[in-house]
Amino acid sequence: MRAPKHIGIIPDGNRRWALSNNLSKEEGYEHGINPGLQLFKLCQKENIEEITFYGYTVDNTKRPTIQKEAFIKACVESVMLLTKEDCEILVVGDTSPHTFPLELLPFTKERVKFGKGGIKVNFLIHYGWAWDLNLRKEFCPFGKHIDTRLKSHEISRIDLIIRWGGRRRLSGFLPVQSVYSDFYVVDNMWPDFKDQDFYDALKWYDKQDVTLGG
Amino acid sequence: MRAPKHIGIIPDGNRRWALSNNLSKEEGYEHGINPGLQLFKLCQKENIEEITFYGYTVDNTKRPTIQKEAFIKACVESVMLLTKEDCEILVVGDTSPHTFPLELLPFTKERVKFGKGGIKVNFLIHYGWAWDLNLRKEFCPFGKHIDTRLKSHEISRIDLIIRWGGRRRLSGFLPVQSVYSDFYVVDNMWPDFKDQDFYDALKWYDKQDVTLGG
Repeated sequence: MRAPKHIGIIPDGNRRWALSNNLSKEEGYEHGINPGLQLFKLCQKENIEEITFYGYTVDNTKRPTIQKEAFIKACVESVMLLTKEDCEILVVGDTSPHTFPLELLPFTKERVKFGKGGIKVNFLIHYGWAWDLNLRKEFCPFGKHIDTRLKSHEISRIDLIIRWGGRRRLSGFLPVQSVYSDFYVVDNMWPDFKDQDFYDALKWYDKQDVTLGG
Repeated sequence: MRAPKHIGIIPDGNRRWALSNNLSKEEGYEHGINPGLQLFKLCQKENIEEITFYGYTVDNTKRPTIQKEAFIKACVESVMLLTKEDCEILVVGDTSPHTFPLELLPFTKERVKFGKGGIKVNFLIHYGWAWDLNLRKEFCPFGKHIDTRLKSHEISRIDLIIRWGGRRRLSGFLPVQSVYSDFYVVDNMWPDFKDQDFYDALKWYDKQDVTLGG
């Protein structure tokens, strides 16, 4: 079986799940924490080399404060849960605004190894595609070379992106690393994650060819 | 009905179509010209404001010469066909290498109006996502501001991307303009284009929400 080395995860549908379970929207996020751990363990078992979780974006922070607080809390807890596992964690996002959770700052400096290390896990936290791509005019002093690398240059090309919640769009998820990614959509909401979703995605991926435009 | 203003078209499957019709791979491309005109006329009829066709990429030029010549020819003919219609054409791509078709150079300088003008039609010709994003180190003279705008900055955000040929990936198609695009995949090969494919995509798009991350 041709397995993806790097899987991107868009864990969408927390709010819709909450509403359909008679909860208020912001209560959905905490139900998205365990699915993340469950999925991590499956990836570990299947020898996936790298996973990137779409935490939240700069655009997401425009949501009502009660929701914003809830998804930031769920993201922080998700990262902390993984520090008890064998993995290597990197957090990528714009740390400049005061909404960036301080607990996660150490993970933005360099990849941090936990336990025996092994699988690389990236979390996009307060991530923005425009921020990532350096899309702004920059002042440049005399004779200096500007490094126009991606902010996310430590995150490798993604082979397979799995999105829960039925939407067929990337929502700004790593535009460069995803240029040739195969994109699999699960109609279930993220809190209803099942192991089978993951295996269905791997099975589908196995049937895709890889041409990289050639 | 909520109609997309800007539709991106990935006309994939020409070679697979050729093989399944007992033709050699490169013969598929010429069968992809008329579907483009047909689709253009549907967009015009439905008052779509802008269409972007994925012509070919820098990566595509690694293919065998006979195929390369065939898809370049088909792209040039596709653009030329539209100069007989009411539209405004822009070609976006890396014109520096000698493989760029000279006939299309005039369209890369500025958008050119034909007939009564109206619908904007963009063709990506010898396009590369890395080229578009200016992903390289640049020398910067004293006191000058570098414009780090996209090469494709004249192409607007895309609402709906329709890909023929069954693959669920963007293949480097305008990473920035497609960050929030809804992505619809048609299993038919492009030369088998049918009006119904287009209307099915519009109908599906009508049911999607637009949040832009908010």
